[in-house]
Amino acid sequence: MTYQVPLKDIRFVLSELAELPAVCTLPGYEDCNVELVDAILDEAAKFAEGVLAPINRNGDKGNTWKDYQVTTAEGFADAYHQFRDSGWVGLRAPQDVGGQGLPALVAMATEEMWCSANLSFSLAPLLTLGAIEAIHHHASEDLKATYLPRMASGEWTGTMNLTEPNAGSDLAQVRTKAVDNGDGTYSITGQKIFITWGEHDMADNIVHLVLARLPDAPAGVKGISLFIVPKYLVNADGTLGARNDARCVSIEHKLGIHGSPTAVMSFGDQGGAIGYLVGELNKGLGYMFTMMNHARLGVGVEGMAISERAYQHAVAYARDRVQSRELGSPNPASAAIIKHPDVRRMLMTMRAQIEAQRALAYYTATALDRAATHPHPEEKARNQALVNFLIPIVKGWNTEQANEITSLGVQVHGGMGFIEETGAAQYYRDARITAIYEGTTGIQALDLIGRKLASENGATARAVLAEVKAVAARLADAGPELQAFQAALNIAVDQASSCVDFVLAHFASNPRLPAAGSVPFLKLMGIVLGGWQMARAALAAQAKLAEDGADVDFLTAKLITARFYGEHLLPQVSGLTVAILHGGESVLALDEAAF
Amino acid sequence: MTYQVPLKDIRFVLSELAELPAVCTLPGYEDCNVELVDAILDEAAKFAEGVLAPINRNGDKGNTWKDYQVTTAEGFADAYHQFRDSGWVGLRAPQDVGGQGLPALVAMATEEMWCSANLSFSLAPLLTLGAIEAIHHHASEDLKATYLPRMASGEWTGTMNLTEPNAGSDLAQVRTKAVDNGDGTYSITGQKIFITWGEHDMADNIVHLVLARLPDAPAGVKGISLFIVPKYLVNADGTLGARNDARCVSIEHKLGIHGSPTAVMSFGDQGGAIGYLVGELNKGLGYMFTMMNHARLGVGVEGMAISERAYQHAVAYARDRVQSRELGSPNPASAAIIKHPDVRRMLMTMRAQIEAQRALAYYTATALDRAATHPHPEEKARNQALVNFLIPIVKGWNTEQANEITSLGVQVHGGMGFIEETGAAQYYRDARITAIYEGTTGIQALDLIGRKLASENGATARAVLAEVKAVAARLADAGPELQAFQAALNIAVDQASSCVDFVLAHFASNPRLPAAGSVPFLKLMGIVLGGWQMARAALAAQAKLAEDGADVDFLTAKLITARFYGEHLLPQVSGLTVAILHGGESVLALDEAAF
Repeated sequence: MTYQVPLKDIRFVLSELAELPAVCTLPGYEDCNVELVDAILDEAAKFAEGVLAPINRNGDKGNTWKDYQVTTAEGFADAYHQFRDSGWVGLRAPQDVGGQGLPALVAMATEEMWCSANLSFSLAPLLTLGAIEAIHHHASEDLKATYLPRMASGEWTGTMNLTEPNAGSDLAQVRTKAVDNGDGTYSITGQKIFITWGEHDMADNIVHLVLARLPDAPAGVKGISLFIVPKYLVNADGTLGARNDARCVSIEHKLGIHGSPTAVMSFGDQGGAIGYLVGELNKGLGYMFTMMNHARLGVGVEGMAISERAYQHAVAYARDRVQSRELGSPNPASAAIIKHPDVRRMLMTMRAQIEAQRALAYYTATALDRAATHPHPEEKARNQALVNFLIPIVKGWNTEQANEITSLGVQVHGGMGFIEETGAAQYYRDARITAIYEGTTGIQALDLIGRKLASENGATARAVLAEVKAVAARLADAGPELQAFQAALNIAVDQASSCVDFVLAHFASNPRLPAAGSVPFLKLMGIVLGGWQMARAALAAQAKLAEDGADVDFLTAKLITARFYGEHLLPQVSGLTVAILHGGESVLALDEAAF
Repeated sequence: MTYQVPLKDIRFVLSELAELPAVCTLPGYEDCNVELVDAILDEAAKFAEGVLAPINRNGDKGNTWKDYQVTTAEGFADAYHQFRDSGWVGLRAPQDVGGQGLPALVAMATEEMWCSANLSFSLAPLLTLGAIEAIHHHASEDLKATYLPRMASGEWTGTMNLTEPNAGSDLAQVRTKAVDNGDGTYSITGQKIFITWGEHDMADNIVHLVLARLPDAPAGVKGISLFIVPKYLVNADGTLGARNDARCVSIEHKLGIHGSPTAVMSFGDQGGAIGYLVGELNKGLGYMFTMMNHARLGVGVEGMAISERAYQHAVAYARDRVQSRELGSPNPASAAIIKHPDVRRMLMTMRAQIEAQRALAYYTATALDRAATHPHPEEKARNQALVNFLIPIVKGWNTEQANEITSLGVQVHGGMGFIEETGAAQYYRDARITAIYEGTTGIQALDLIGRKLASENGATARAVLAEVKAVAARLADAGPELQAFQAALNIAVDQASSCVDFVLAHFASNPRLPAAGSVPFLKLMGIVLGGWQMARAALAAQAKLAEDGADVDFLTAKLITARFYGEHLLPQVSGLTVAILHGGESVLALDEAAF
């Protein structure tokens, strides 16, 4: 099954909704311009379609582990070498370490393509970028000089080693030990699990970032330090030295993303792995948070991207598969199933959410770029708050819906969807991890109501909802076809506001009550903010339709999709609102023993 | 992971909601009584927990095909022999062919257990029962005598051969050929796909029921005949004869139910398989419909049962797994995750729907028993209409929600849920077929609005909704704790009524419009009728709580679960209503080329 990059929609979102031209004027991004981005998108699309998508099914066959080494699926190493040599790894890595320093917004468009084409593959460069970010912000000049250029070039890949068997989301429980060797290095011992691309055969070295604890460190999260633990030590001249005592002792047998090896890493089995402290002792958790926002946004893109792939696969099948006559038609012949109303409903449900999610994710990337580089401190701060608020929503909503959307993708195929060779089931399995890793939806939702909403008394949430209201008001002048959409958006945003009030009223005194509705609240915000973006898209589409040479088909489809969103997605907000406002007690009431 | 049959809830539903004592008074079921059923449930629970559940993970490793033969997963053949020898196969098969002739209601309780314990395994006897039903109703005395006793005893299993590569749900396209041999037999040639348990090593013979077409048969569904095509021919003395020309040429590589071999069957590769006509020529489709209701109800039970298994697995993990401190508690120690509000919300969402689904399915089984045997023709007809109306809802709603519920089961496990050895992922994969086979949810929904609703101008739907209203009225006297639930149910049933009106108003003139909202309509009816059953359950629980020696914990939990259902599930009806009443046009508007 082929994948075709949805370049029209990506370009529409970049230019009409995510303000690419404005992003290109931010300090540090002056080399970027719309023409350059166009060229990048074309090249990236070629790579995604021509190199990464065709090996996605191979990846599903999985990797093999033998003697602490992992052999990746057929075609992966070769594809990675091409990816590296084409300079894709360092697209948004800083220029001073050999990256291309492009805006996060531009990188997001390419990252969407890698994720749609081959989710398993895309994780290797994504993890490398996260590691680059942490090292760049916090490590010594020496460590930066040693590691970053090789990582930005893609010669070496990076990993994050956080999780341990008894410390999943709760990093206070990290037990991996670091002992000061007295020579500027540390000796690391312990076991880490769920290490994505923790071992593989695609790059010359693997740079593990490892959270560990010194023997005399304070208990809990305040005693965690961050270390670089390379697979191969690096000599003073930059050549690779001895094999470090960091080994992949097994890889997991997973539901999906089989192409991506998930390693159990053992450090120090043979005396202690050599580690290099990043920044200061006991500040490791904060350093990890540096890259958390970007990583979580990245996973939100993964959810949307795998949904896009599932959508394309389903559309192709629905056009091709002939079955049963068309309902209400005098024609007795069997019709392509895309003519059947419920198949259309499924495809529209997929499509409308994907478009809303893409717009919201790209919008967030623009805020991220502004938060990083805007010259006015106030705008910088405002955008940082916006990013903080939006990221758990994008991460949580896009990935929860990816489960539903890829499930619809299976359903469109009927019985063929259950057969693995068809490919639809792979997206369903692959998607399932996205609502779990980098913090489950429950963790995103708690972050949203607590650290993001309550901590600033809802300032950003209210500002964003006011913005949605303003856009809804603009819809009033947009002609009759958007009136129902406007009404639905207005109702939904008011319901969202009452839910914000509810969370703020109770979080300090009785946090368990809003926490019981936190995931419904996150989904509600996703639907409403997705509706906001669809409203902006509809307004932009209307404006463009009036232009000479307008792409009438594309813009008309955008308007129909917005309308569908207003009639099928926004009305779900009512039910969620009841659950949030009135459903907390029944969540908490049952005796534990009675479950 | 162990499975424990939810005997308390099953008994509560049987006695309080599904009127088991009344069913035992129906003609033909006089031998059945509550004590006998109790004993059967205890024995079935032992078998499900002790024999079937432990081999469920083995089944996931799949079957092997070699030289047209299938070797089932370790433990399956032995378990089947025990199952057969214990007399479980023929529990609801007619007594005159060696079955035990128990009510469908009683059999449903055992079938739930088989499905929860081992979905793949359960399909073998389920398909056998379907074949028994078709043969019993329509075949000649000779064929019945030859096949039924061996099938009811479980010595031989049965299959349904409907689907062909180009004829999935649309049986008009069946091309398998039957030629009259002039000796009372027919020569069958053609290929059938997706044949569940089409080949295996657990029984001495396999009795295939095959849809095929005579050369001079009318086109379309009116030219389809039904044939018995045994794997081994049966001699006049009942011993097994020659191997028939019916071969399994491969088995499918599927997303789930790996323990159940899904065969591609080839008939007549070596000259023609011997087939025996069931009933009259060209009436095969009608014969298939005989067993369709039961089969679809059975798949609805599968959806609920796999959800129950996923729920139990998730509860056990949530009690066991310690992670992060309790929100809002002064205790700094990490807590079992069952204390975390969102984990509780997930478990309650699973639990509330499972209980509602069980009640609705068992209620439907009672109607099925009454439709089959009630002495008063009017009651018989009323119950048949009820069965016809409820079955697409139970099939569609239970299985769609099984996808969501088993997904929540994965989610409760966090990262461990994605690891196959944990087992949660297997339920997620296994469940996925239930919304597809025996007619996808889209097909159930079309059946519901067309053949079930419009064809009788909504008579049964209105009668059922009036019944829901009456139960809601009874909640008014049920004390303050059920007031919110009553209000929610009243709102939901009114919305359901307006959706019924909408479907009836448009189905004849413009069927595509209600068809566009048919799956939302099916889900809406599922939620409302599930709420009806939860209301009945709550009223029964309240009444029983006043009795001496009441099981206070169980009954209190039932009331809390009903309340949760009212606050989290019933409010979803609002959003679905908007989609049904106003969302049809946007489903149908997009140009096909624009997808």
